[in-house]
Amino acid sequence: MVRKKPTLVSLAEAVGVSRQTVSNVLNNPERVKAATRDRVLQAIEESGYRPSAAARQLRTRRSMDLGMRLRPAAGGISGSVLDRLLHALTEAAQDSGYRLTLYSAGDDGEEVARIEDLLHAADLDGFVLTGVHSGDPRVDWLQEHGVPFACFGRPANGPDPFAVPYPWVDVDGAAGTAAATRFLRDSGYAAVGFVGWTADSAPGEERRDGWRRAMSGYQSAGELAELQAEAEDTVEGGAGAARLLLERGAEALVCASDALALGAFAYLRSAVPGRIPAVVGFDDTPVAEAVGLSSLSPPIARAARQIIEVLSHRLSGGPEGQGPRRHLLLEPSLVVRTPRDLGRPS
Amino acid sequence: MVRKKPTLVSLAEAVGVSRQTVSNVLNNPERVKAATRDRVLQAIEESGYRPSAAARQLRTRRSMDLGMRLRPAAGGISGSVLDRLLHALTEAAQDSGYRLTLYSAGDDGEEVARIEDLLHAADLDGFVLTGVHSGDPRVDWLQEHGVPFACFGRPANGPDPFAVPYPWVDVDGAAGTAAATRFLRDSGYAAVGFVGWTADSAPGEERRDGWRRAMSGYQSAGELAELQAEAEDTVEGGAGAARLLLERGAEALVCASDALALGAFAYLRSAVPGRIPAVVGFDDTPVAEAVGLSSLSPPIARAARQIIEVLSHRLSGGPEGQGPRRHLLLEPSLVVRTPRDLGRPS
Repeated sequence: MVRKKPTLVSLAEAVGVSRQTVSNVLNNPERVKAATRDRVLQAIEESGYRPSAAARQLRTRRSMDLGMRLRPAAGGISGSVLDRLLHALTEAAQDSGYRLTLYSAGDDGEEVARIEDLLHAADLDGFVLTGVHSGDPRVDWLQEHGVPFACFGRPANGPDPFAVPYPWVDVDGAAGTAAATRFLRDSGYAAVGFVGWTADSAPGEERRDGWRRAMSGYQSAGELAELQAEAEDTVEGGAGAARLLLERGAEALVCASDALALGAFAYLRSAVPGRIPAVVGFDDTPVAEAVGLSSLSPPIARAARQIIEVLSHRLSGGPEGQGPRRHLLLEPSLVVRTPRDLGRPS
Repeated sequence: MVRKKPTLVSLAEAVGVSRQTVSNVLNNPERVKAATRDRVLQAIEESGYRPSAAARQLRTRRSMDLGMRLRPAAGGISGSVLDRLLHALTEAAQDSGYRLTLYSAGDDGEEVARIEDLLHAADLDGFVLTGVHSGDPRVDWLQEHGVPFACFGRPANGPDPFAVPYPWVDVDGAAGTAAATRFLRDSGYAAVGFVGWTADSAPGEERRDGWRRAMSGYQSAGELAELQAEAEDTVEGGAGAARLLLERGAEALVCASDALALGAFAYLRSAVPGRIPAVVGFDDTPVAEAVGLSSLSPPIARAARQIIEVLSHRLSGGPEGQGPRRHLLLEPSLVVRTPRDLGRPS
């Protein structure tokens, strides 16, 4: 017996839902209740149904292709966060039937030119922007031309990011450092210091504010100022700041990055050999795991899903004011580790 | 005066070459002598000529789109090498007029299905494969269907990789560890040890062989066996191996990875506080730079250019037996660093 090739209609009949519901499961899964979605997906899987991407594009006039600028490898310990976003976006895009096309550009103006080229050459459906700032030429151009886009990171150096009309998702740095500070206090350390960056930046200020918020009530403003140091975002910078704060009475440290935390960690280890260094970093980079350093892990997979959901909602003509939230701050989670024992000579 | 829009013909006249030469500079630059290419490129730049990718695709019937599977972030200290390849490929592809499309897949069989989908949906021109091995279903499928592809990494676990008909580029691990070993010997260390992986792997054996080759003549086989240890690819593994080899008389260490080297480095620092640890890692990861660890840097940008050149030659119908080399082993370069001083308590 030849098995008939399944269609949207035969699948809908098999599950007992409408053809539109099956189509939504494939194209706009966020519109379908989870229970129904699971039943339809199971039926699709059992039937061997395979939607043709080309057919879908003809039907929807979408290329199902999203573009993203791949910035030069940032280097440094924290440079891997955007790479992790890229991995997560590739998977989230694919789960929703999109492809991801990469391009490079030397600056924002050049990125606009690349976006024009890609729209012309490959009819991309939308773009994922990173590093968006006030007066960003990419935002102006995309808005002017009605091209869908979503941002990783709030627009920096501008007015209230919650007031901009375009979607973004970002990591709530203040919530992260506040949680790390509370964790260290709850673990019995009274004087928790903070190591931030010398360079001004919105994420840097935010990470410091979270620490300060979690320390208010415990120390006077004057005492708090003593427990704060700033350094270049390097391992040496972290070591030097840790030395200073140790002298000033800090018992534990929350750091704005894993590079700073690694330096603080190494310094405390050699300065106070008998004691486990109480240090928390930020970004949960591979080196944090390698040396057993506690760190704040940004919810990259969740951020990537949000970006794809927002774009997918817009691209499928979903109604304004409905669909996923336009501006979303995600709390990092604290990964607590035990420092690795690298042994002493026998 | 309205300036006329430049064309291939007007550009050719301006430079004094044929129209075909200008076209080659844009589409098959490897066919044009460097001096001519530079003159044409300068004329193109001055004229503001901008080839339309869509027009080029219509003319050449190519999508100018290459696919690559983005594997899940490997994690660990060395996990960033494929991400660095991705950055380099994006730039190299763009320089040659290609785009790069990413996809994910759970295994090689699923990757074949994704490749089929992408050829159907987006008419990709070719693919970049990583992790190719003997009996690889992706290689079989692509060869059978005449789809161009190039590999990063030699095919593993099979017959002579130089005998396979498809192109690959890889890092010469043995040349790297041999150079590191010679460097340490030339720096005055007689007994250079090697820390490898417990797990069998072709890159692991190769890295050990390079060390052994550079040590032959200096030590007897028995003495050499004493200077070699194996460990899990972790920081603790490296620390434990360093402890063992130090006891056996090793004065300096070449390690198969930066994770191992970081552990060896930290152990030697605490075990022999007065002496700078003489350790060389492999892959030149961000953490090596952060802590001032010498390491072998794989020539990723060169590898990416080679992959794009090989694919571009094939896609432009370049003659077999000409064009870039089909199988290319690239030597890593040794990056010598001074260990960072993280300070001692005052």
